[in-house]
Amino acid sequence: MSIAVRSAQTTWAGSLAAGVGTLSNSSSGVLDDQKVTWAARTEGPGGKTSPEELAAAAHSSCYSMALSLKLGENQTPAQQLTVTASVTLDEVDGAPTVTTSALRVRAQVPGLDEAGFAKVVDDASALCPISRLFAGATITVDAALETA
Amino acid sequence: MSIAVRSAQTTWAGSLAAGVGTLSNSSSGVLDDQKVTWAARTEGPGGKTSPEELAAAAHSSCYSMALSLKLGENQTPAQQLTVTASVTLDEVDGAPTVTTSALRVRAQVPGLDEAGFAKVVDDASALCPISRLFAGATITVDAALETA
Repeated sequence: MSIAVRSAQTTWAGSLAAGVGTLSNSSSGVLDDQKVTWAARTEGPGGKTSPEELAAAAHSSCYSMALSLKLGENQTPAQQLTVTASVTLDEVDGAPTVTTSALRVRAQVPGLDEAGFAKVVDDASALCPISRLFAGATITVDAALETA
Repeated sequence: MSIAVRSAQTTWAGSLAAGVGTLSNSSSGVLDDQKVTWAARTEGPGGKTSPEELAAAAHSSCYSMALSLKLGENQTPAQQLTVTASVTLDEVDGAPTVTTSALRVRAQVPGLDEAGFAKVVDDASALCPISRLFAGATITVDAALETA
């Protein structure tokens, strides 16, 4: 039995260049009625989400959970964690390709030094299910402690 | 130069089990202030998105664009396309792992028969950047024509 199954639907009308996709039936409901277009994806967002933004949100939220878990197991829970994911769509051999998801991690962790933090970050990077899902891209992690 | 870079941030406060993540700084703004928790991710969504739901939305929206493009190149544009992605989180060797993203595609395409549609679907599956990003999971595609 699986841990969880989560779904979302896109209904697309029109050509790629001129058409519009509408999200619906997301498991939580919170993504419903969001619009996606090729122009918003590749030019400016203009208030519309995109596959790459959704992938970035998936990655940042998952990594923050993995790091929270590993800091807890280390008996050094964070006061606060911030994980930013930046997902790049590039052209590779003529095809649009997600080449990288770059994670920037900043954490306030009382009682943990840089070496200890680096080890916990490595553990979280190995655990994060979305990092492993994104096997088609290069994942980078820029992690640093910061003071409150 | 890349086609696009899209970002999102998660700020996590608390332990994995009891803590809450808050999305912010999404490129479009539309994901900002959404909450994520471990309980909502693994039990019921309860109005909260999750990494798997966000991944499903990324996949369904990207695949709908890829299929729209390939149908247009085939001179058989769709009247309507619906792509549902279901992303499964499962435990593999003791670690939470995204095992599958299952796509269900339904399309109204005047003038295209099942064999022609199957070929275009194969082309879209090979193109879809998010399918290729998700190299860590098994991607399945259940595609069928339907009448208006």
